[in-house]
Amino acid sequence: MKAYYDPQHAEHHPKFFLVRGQIRESTEVPERAERLHQALIAGGHEVLAPRRFGRGPIAAVHSEAYLRFLEEAPAAWVALGDASAEIVANVHPNRHEAGGYPESIVGRAGWHMADTACPIGPGTFAAALRAADVAVSAAQAVVGGERAAYALCRPPGHHAYADMAGGFCFLNNTAIAAQYLSERLGRVAVLDVDVHHGNGTQSIFWERGDVMTVSVHADPTDFYPFFWGHAGERGGGAGEGANLNLPLALGTGDEDVLTALAVAAEALHGFAPAALVVALGLDASEEDPLKGLAVTTQGFSRIGAAIDGLGLPTVLVQEGGYLSPVLGRNLAAVLGAFA
Amino acid sequence: MKAYYDPQHAEHHPKFFLVRGQIRESTEVPERAERLHQALIAGGHEVLAPRRFGRGPIAAVHSEAYLRFLEEAPAAWVALGDASAEIVANVHPNRHEAGGYPESIVGRAGWHMADTACPIGPGTFAAALRAADVAVSAAQAVVGGERAAYALCRPPGHHAYADMAGGFCFLNNTAIAAQYLSERLGRVAVLDVDVHHGNGTQSIFWERGDVMTVSVHADPTDFYPFFWGHAGERGGGAGEGANLNLPLALGTGDEDVLTALAVAAEALHGFAPAALVVALGLDASEEDPLKGLAVTTQGFSRIGAAIDGLGLPTVLVQEGGYLSPVLGRNLAAVLGAFA
Repeated sequence: MKAYYDPQHAEHHPKFFLVRGQIRESTEVPERAERLHQALIAGGHEVLAPRRFGRGPIAAVHSEAYLRFLEEAPAAWVALGDASAEIVANVHPNRHEAGGYPESIVGRAGWHMADTACPIGPGTFAAALRAADVAVSAAQAVVGGERAAYALCRPPGHHAYADMAGGFCFLNNTAIAAQYLSERLGRVAVLDVDVHHGNGTQSIFWERGDVMTVSVHADPTDFYPFFWGHAGERGGGAGEGANLNLPLALGTGDEDVLTALAVAAEALHGFAPAALVVALGLDASEEDPLKGLAVTTQGFSRIGAAIDGLGLPTVLVQEGGYLSPVLGRNLAAVLGAFA
Repeated sequence: MKAYYDPQHAEHHPKFFLVRGQIRESTEVPERAERLHQALIAGGHEVLAPRRFGRGPIAAVHSEAYLRFLEEAPAAWVALGDASAEIVANVHPNRHEAGGYPESIVGRAGWHMADTACPIGPGTFAAALRAADVAVSAAQAVVGGERAAYALCRPPGHHAYADMAGGFCFLNNTAIAAQYLSERLGRVAVLDVDVHHGNGTQSIFWERGDVMTVSVHADPTDFYPFFWGHAGERGGGAGEGANLNLPLALGTGDEDVLTALAVAAEALHGFAPAALVVALGLDASEEDPLKGLAVTTQGFSRIGAAIDGLGLPTVLVQEGGYLSPVLGRNLAAVLGAFA
């Protein structure tokens, strides 16, 4: 399979991660992508450098103010003096919002960052731009006739909103690829199999009737992103009915994940998209440090086969999946299942 | 002057404070209240223990879900295992809100906590309840005929929303006192002279035409709370025109603060309230570690005289004001100016 990768991801390497009141080292480390890259080479996939698409495909999904923030914030943050090396928001606008868009960098950080798991360092925006190029390159290959292509994106993207970072994500690579396909092929679907709900992607296409979003994930009742991903969220406006969430109990294994995928497949068939973007998190693994679901390597093979069985032109976009002995093997399992 | 104080404030002593990406020790320490208490005694004020008013006056301002959260959250947080001693939110619902009220404690923390400056420890809720009792006791004294009474509240309150903690604040003592007065005396005004905008108080009375809120503070363009406190925020619905913000440039000194207070006084006269609650932050001091404004001790005397000159039954509620050599002296200056 054609696969796209850019080593510039390594310029994004934030250290700060506040969870349950404690500072931890982030699990979203460059080594993730390096191991996945090795798995691609070992699997005989054709690994290509992405083209550079500029701001166009990104601006079709993200707001101009947000892109300006990502670009300008690191220098403004350092200029505060007495600040950390990485931007971490400490105060957020809330549902009682009264004022407008803030002028100060501290205010803008809170405006554009949903949580403490998306610190922005000096290399973050450049790395995120490259990840988006990787996603669009894979989408372009599919538009050009490839049955499937894989985008080794890092940082990941599916928690990023049109104007907000969150959960290790900055630019929503999956949504950018889906939008790119939608402009060229018409109806598009996103199938998110990351262990976390694809809240950013859901939000971006919430009112779109021409882009279906389906997410299979650990139940957000007690798992990130907590506020979104419940079965009752079905889309709004013209998009009503075009969002499907299939939350699963924590610890769910292969069989029930595959059953949920069969439900997803039925919805996708009904929608009849011209192409599919898979938000390919590998963190549903039983060996993933996040321990949300418990999919085996064989389960990932079956997930790959189920996706292949949809018979759609498919862009596979890497989302989460953290360091474990089976990380690379699980990617190989998914890609290897493709015809 | 009658003054109310409860030493139980000391049970609230959080350590965590994330600002500009760095963990700092909080400036909102028990010693603040102890120094203010000493200043009351030295000034010959009559220091009284508060009565216990139960949940009634608090529930008139805060939501039931929020009060339940404050009460139950510490045990639920500890039960997570692997969590900090204090609750600090790391993920927030945002303006793209789709799901409902979260079930997990991590989600609820993000729902009810606006920033990383309001960690909740095991003694926080009890201390906050006592602070509210202190405020209501002072309000009761004024209803009972006292021209003025002082409430030495800690933790402070004016950044707390009806359903959200923020900026060292949990229960909005100022709003609770104002609501208590409003139920007994009719039209009430709040004058907030803390260096920070009283965003919680503004929000709580945003649509109330019978409670005027006026705040004189450092310009939020580059100062906490960043998103609120701009001159254009005038109230909504029935409260339109009953909110007045007078932001001042960082570093503003006595003369311009007094000029702003004269503008506030004119608005308050026009509103003709039956009573006044002063959100008495002392952090506008030139010696306060926060360095937002530059009021001298003589300036605080003049602020006290200006408030006294309004000629209204007045409840003075302690808000911010951090450790400096002049903290107690500035309180004495304000209270000493009262007739």
